[in-house]
Amino acid sequence: MSVPSPEDFRFHRHVPDGDTRERLVCDSCGWIHYVNPKIVVGAVCVWQDKILLCRRAIEPRRGYWTIPAGYLEQEETPEAGAMREAKEEAGAEIELSGLLGVYSIPRISQVHLIYRATLLSPSVAAGEESLALGLYDSAEIPWPDLAFPTVRWALQHYREVGAAAAFAPRSNPAEEQIPPR
Amino acid sequence: MSVPSPEDFRFHRHVPDGDTRERLVCDSCGWIHYVNPKIVVGAVCVWQDKILLCRRAIEPRRGYWTIPAGYLEQEETPEAGAMREAKEEAGAEIELSGLLGVYSIPRISQVHLIYRATLLSPSVAAGEESLALGLYDSAEIPWPDLAFPTVRWALQHYREVGAAAAFAPRSNPAEEQIPPR
Repeated sequence: MSVPSPEDFRFHRHVPDGDTRERLVCDSCGWIHYVNPKIVVGAVCVWQDKILLCRRAIEPRRGYWTIPAGYLEQEETPEAGAMREAKEEAGAEIELSGLLGVYSIPRISQVHLIYRATLLSPSVAAGEESLALGLYDSAEIPWPDLAFPTVRWALQHYREVGAAAAFAPRSNPAEEQIPPR
Repeated sequence: MSVPSPEDFRFHRHVPDGDTRERLVCDSCGWIHYVNPKIVVGAVCVWQDKILLCRRAIEPRRGYWTIPAGYLEQEETPEAGAMREAKEEAGAEIELSGLLGVYSIPRISQVHLIYRATLLSPSVAAGEESLALGLYDSAEIPWPDLAFPTVRWALQHYREVGAAAAFAPRSNPAEEQIPPR
């Protein structure tokens, strides 16, 4: 049997045997097209008590500040992904030191794994997705200009955790649970 | 413009502008088919110091023992997914009490989020994917008959953590890092 081409597929939406949810199923070959939530990995990266922020060069939220973060890639561990994003978006070499938060945005089917990290040097350089970079004192963080709630949560949770050796990761703040659609 | 049908797509594998990896891109409409790692959610569920195990009724590893776990669904939080899996596979109502482990299997692009949980009652019932259920004393766990390394890691980490109020989640044991393919 040859590799199927798009013309061979006849997709319809129904509940496969033994399943409980509707999926896109191909009536000619039986292939089930599963769609699952995506993982975003990132890090609060610190150099001598200053926190690395990146000003976004891309939509959504161009011009607003974020931490280095992005989609986990195939065959990548979350730790490797968080380190790759710091390198890509800020030219930063980092060392991870604990999982800071596991945040859920069920409305858009995302789970964010955000680590605490130390910059290995203060040398940073804006990547293609960043307009500018900054090393911000905890008291100087531009809270109204942060790109996403998850960035605010991670920075707040970093302030709570500080340099603690071991800690449980935080999840969405109770007062900001995002209900499912 | 109408919704595209499979016949409209002309997929080729190349690196989109501003990206660093090859993706399947449709040359006629520009759609990029991203493929990302999947999240597995589950729980070590405990009733009066006994741990709930499920004997798998499905491949892979039919007949071997596992904890309730499965793929996170769209628009679901990891916590809700872990509770759903305990209900589906073991008829179990559980309460989560901390993230026990974040395990990576980059070879198959999976990230496992495994929680510590308490059974709200000893009443359990095998679901379609389970041949049998058991409430095992920590000393009686059938280690050679566990279905997957991640199940063994989660049970070992549960033994380390016990009833601790707060703890950092574990990741793959250092001696059992699974290298990328």
